[in-house]
Amino acid sequence: MEKRKAVQDAEVAAKTIEKGLLIVNTGPGKGKTTAALGLALRALGRGRRVGIVQFIKGAWDTGEKHALAAFGERVAWHTMGEGFTWETQDKARDIAACREAWAKALELMADPTIGLLILDELNIALRYDYLDLDAVVGALQARRPGLHVVVTGRNAKPALIEAADLVTEMGNVKHHFSAGVKAQEGIEF
Amino acid sequence: MEKRKAVQDAEVAAKTIEKGLLIVNTGPGKGKTTAALGLALRALGRGRRVGIVQFIKGAWDTGEKHALAAFGERVAWHTMGEGFTWETQDKARDIAACREAWAKALELMADPTIGLLILDELNIALRYDYLDLDAVVGALQARRPGLHVVVTGRNAKPALIEAADLVTEMGNVKHHFSAGVKAQEGIEF
Repeated sequence: MEKRKAVQDAEVAAKTIEKGLLIVNTGPGKGKTTAALGLALRALGRGRRVGIVQFIKGAWDTGEKHALAAFGERVAWHTMGEGFTWETQDKARDIAACREAWAKALELMADPTIGLLILDELNIALRYDYLDLDAVVGALQARRPGLHVVVTGRNAKPALIEAADLVTEMGNVKHHFSAGVKAQEGIEF
Repeated sequence: MEKRKAVQDAEVAAKTIEKGLLIVNTGPGKGKTTAALGLALRALGRGRRVGIVQFIKGAWDTGEKHALAAFGERVAWHTMGEGFTWETQDKARDIAACREAWAKALELMADPTIGLLILDELNIALRYDYLDLDAVVGALQARRPGLHVVVTGRNAKPALIEAADLVTEMGNVKHHFSAGVKAQEGIEF
């Protein structure tokens, strides 16, 4: 263990580039959004403001909203008020809602007070081609130098993975739903 | 998408068991601890108290500590004050420190005000056989019915995975360290 740590220390010391990261949390397992929330907590603890745009209505419930309310104005939150849900029935409305959310994302990316921006379930909007992939990836790549962006959702597009600095695939090893356990307040929502 | 959601809704409705979950976040990728932090935020937002025991000294830095301080007494925090670090040099001291941390974990498991308990990097202590695996898994299985426990760390033991309700493997698809980017405040710590 000592040796491995020494090697790790040397490797870490050799890293010299400091930049805002493009982080992608994808895969079928749990933890994509919660890991983004954990980064929000970490950034808030470092005195940064955090922006959050949800691309799926209802993907987050009141648990995290209540908790983040403790940080007041230091969290800028935008939930899609209409349209795109898991039960989408009106494609034109959904596309309009996605575009509105993306416009909000661009606005927060341009806001120099924001140090971390979470684009929750953006991968879903991209998967259904509700936003232009090239335009989204291009804007993410052109982000301010110090801005960290976290994109969550299953089935991240290859072009986004290519552009990202850090990509984690959450794999589902075992899930309690298969044992008849229901979604529970404080865990799933 | 509509059909898949309908199937999901039916599946979710069929789940009737409500229980505190044993959750394991493992694998080589990022997000094991941050996803646990996200669950802490969610639980705090639901009015629950959260217990945190860190089995590796220095695994968490000040970012998350500062942020969680916003919740005051609602977060019960125990960091191993001595011993077991990534650079361990004194096995007897490390084992003693792990036992002390585990005693704290048992104390928090018995505390009825705690709704979620995070045992951060417990998998490392188990991997080095610094704690008795059977005793740990047995105690986790015998937890209070409503208590959710999250265990993090690479290389989760098969017996723990077997006992768990929800296991997620964080896979490392792409990491910025390999591109020469250094660990940064607010992201890695």
